[in-house]
Amino acid sequence: MSDLTLNPTFLQACRGEKPAHTPVWLMRQAGRYMAEYRALRAQHSILEMIKDPEKAAEVTLQPVNAFPVDAAIIFADILTLLEPMGMNLEFISGKGPVFHNPVRDPADIRALKPINARRDLDFTLDAIRLSRERLENRIPLLGFSGAPYTLACYAIEGAGSKDFDNVRAWMFAHPRDWADLMDRLTDAVTDYLLAQIEAGAQAVQLFDSWAGSLSLADYRRFAAPWTRRIFDTLAREAPGVPRIHFSANGGHLLDEIATFPLSVLSLDWRVDAAAAIAKYGNSAAYQGNLDPARLLASDEAVLEGVAAVKQAFSGANGHIFNLGHGVIKTTPPERVKLLIDCVHGL
Amino acid sequence: MSDLTLNPTFLQACRGEKPAHTPVWLMRQAGRYMAEYRALRAQHSILEMIKDPEKAAEVTLQPVNAFPVDAAIIFADILTLLEPMGMNLEFISGKGPVFHNPVRDPADIRALKPINARRDLDFTLDAIRLSRERLENRIPLLGFSGAPYTLACYAIEGAGSKDFDNVRAWMFAHPRDWADLMDRLTDAVTDYLLAQIEAGAQAVQLFDSWAGSLSLADYRRFAAPWTRRIFDTLAREAPGVPRIHFSANGGHLLDEIATFPLSVLSLDWRVDAAAAIAKYGNSAAYQGNLDPARLLASDEAVLEGVAAVKQAFSGANGHIFNLGHGVIKTTPPERVKLLIDCVHGL
Repeated sequence: MSDLTLNPTFLQACRGEKPAHTPVWLMRQAGRYMAEYRALRAQHSILEMIKDPEKAAEVTLQPVNAFPVDAAIIFADILTLLEPMGMNLEFISGKGPVFHNPVRDPADIRALKPINARRDLDFTLDAIRLSRERLENRIPLLGFSGAPYTLACYAIEGAGSKDFDNVRAWMFAHPRDWADLMDRLTDAVTDYLLAQIEAGAQAVQLFDSWAGSLSLADYRRFAAPWTRRIFDTLAREAPGVPRIHFSANGGHLLDEIATFPLSVLSLDWRVDAAAAIAKYGNSAAYQGNLDPARLLASDEAVLEGVAAVKQAFSGANGHIFNLGHGVIKTTPPERVKLLIDCVHGL
Repeated sequence: MSDLTLNPTFLQACRGEKPAHTPVWLMRQAGRYMAEYRALRAQHSILEMIKDPEKAAEVTLQPVNAFPVDAAIIFADILTLLEPMGMNLEFISGKGPVFHNPVRDPADIRALKPINARRDLDFTLDAIRLSRERLENRIPLLGFSGAPYTLACYAIEGAGSKDFDNVRAWMFAHPRDWADLMDRLTDAVTDYLLAQIEAGAQAVQLFDSWAGSLSLADYRRFAAPWTRRIFDTLAREAPGVPRIHFSANGGHLLDEIATFPLSVLSLDWRVDAAAAIAKYGNSAAYQGNLDPARLLASDEAVLEGVAAVKQAFSGANGHIFNLGHGVIKTTPPERVKLLIDCVHGL
């Protein structure tokens, strides 16, 4: 399939070039805030939608058809790759993801299976192929995965948690078993992302949703080496495909994250973007970082926020406009439209 | 009552002096991890314990009698001062604090009543007097309150929340009403802290548990002016009483927080203490910041963590050892003992 994307603004910004307009896409742009999504969700579980390539492609295209976004992201979940490793995943209404067999001792870790993404996660790869067909090169398609630390959090805790205190406790108590777990997760993530690229993903983003619960010193010891290994491999095996890193609540980790071989550094809404660009320079492009709560507030709050974000990133070689976290499910869709038009300068 | 505390190490460190040993106390040192606390809690609700000075003093003294801590903190809650303002507080098991009449529009804010802490929160003031008597000047007693931003979060949301997105949305949408609410909360907090000092609190700590959900720019606009006003008033009205600020998850706000007239800057476990001291200097003393998860892990993890924290704070004029967040309820009490002995160099 050709990479001659009709709207190249996102890929240009990833490469640090100045596109015709500031590209914008939104984390969780396909989600519950859209009536089209809720209609499909009323009939199917999240896992059913993810595992049916037809439905996953349909959801992927929903925001693309509704809004003039400059990139699409495949509809999938950061946790699905734990299933073929041997973990039983269920999304429970009002509770979120739950693993019924969390990893709690070294034998559990040794029992985790290596994955072959082309076989075990073929549904997402098929959804990528189908989405690329339907996008007809209008805009590029991103693939993604959870980062090893975040995957380890769910594998050990077995569910969401405020700060995953029990996970850090386990990590401190079992540093060698922790390294074993992170090795296995890193192999799986790497295989999965390379398979997504092979299937047609034109950029990939690693989501480290919970690394922010670590201090910088512990991040350097217990998480960063594995994340770095993934980006090193991607840079070697798929050098032309932009690599994006997003860490929620991870501003205090940027001293380390900025040393990864990244194309794009994606910032949480709490990070002072101008200060980050001044400190970490322009070897990577930047993405972010409007506070998603502004979309709930008022049109004025969106306009004011967009102007402030564009100003804060004005020193970046490349800037991809995004939220500093996922779209909140109570967001009015018309504010998303307003946001995107405003970023595009309309 | 005399201030000639037999163990002056905490107050010395607050003043930036080098005490005979590094003083240590722990946020939430009186809590569910202690069997003595659970025994009392089995018979009384949290609010019953807080509102009965006899029981509140008993709980305050529990960790003092169990461990060689260098300071006590009065048993109370950051949210109780919202009750006399007109909000109906209940602690619901497994859910935490709930207000049954959250503030949702400007009329709700105008209906909030000013408090007179000496009348409305006399139970905590009596508990302070009783605790001081029972402490017999062995160690100093801290008073505390929630900071206005955190109080506003609970007042508007009516309960806990992951990042209080709805609160920021409300704040962006109603900046003038927000300022009105913050003015009222600031008056209440100031009155409450001054009354605690009058009753015998020998230092006061402001807990801003949720300010970390704001960007620095929004913190400066929507939270910091009110927090600063409180510390300005305390510095003027009670200049000899150390003022401590703790912001959970607020490392990205320190550029502003460090400009408050503080005696002690208390750091979350994720803050790089050595870097903070290098950046913000020694006009204030520092407190913190062991990751509380280390207490769940192993003796080795505690010893390693204490050594790292003491090293990280070695450039501070005064260092009060503490956790970087409250004690986790599953913490083994013997690890708290180990921690304190280790800080004391035993």
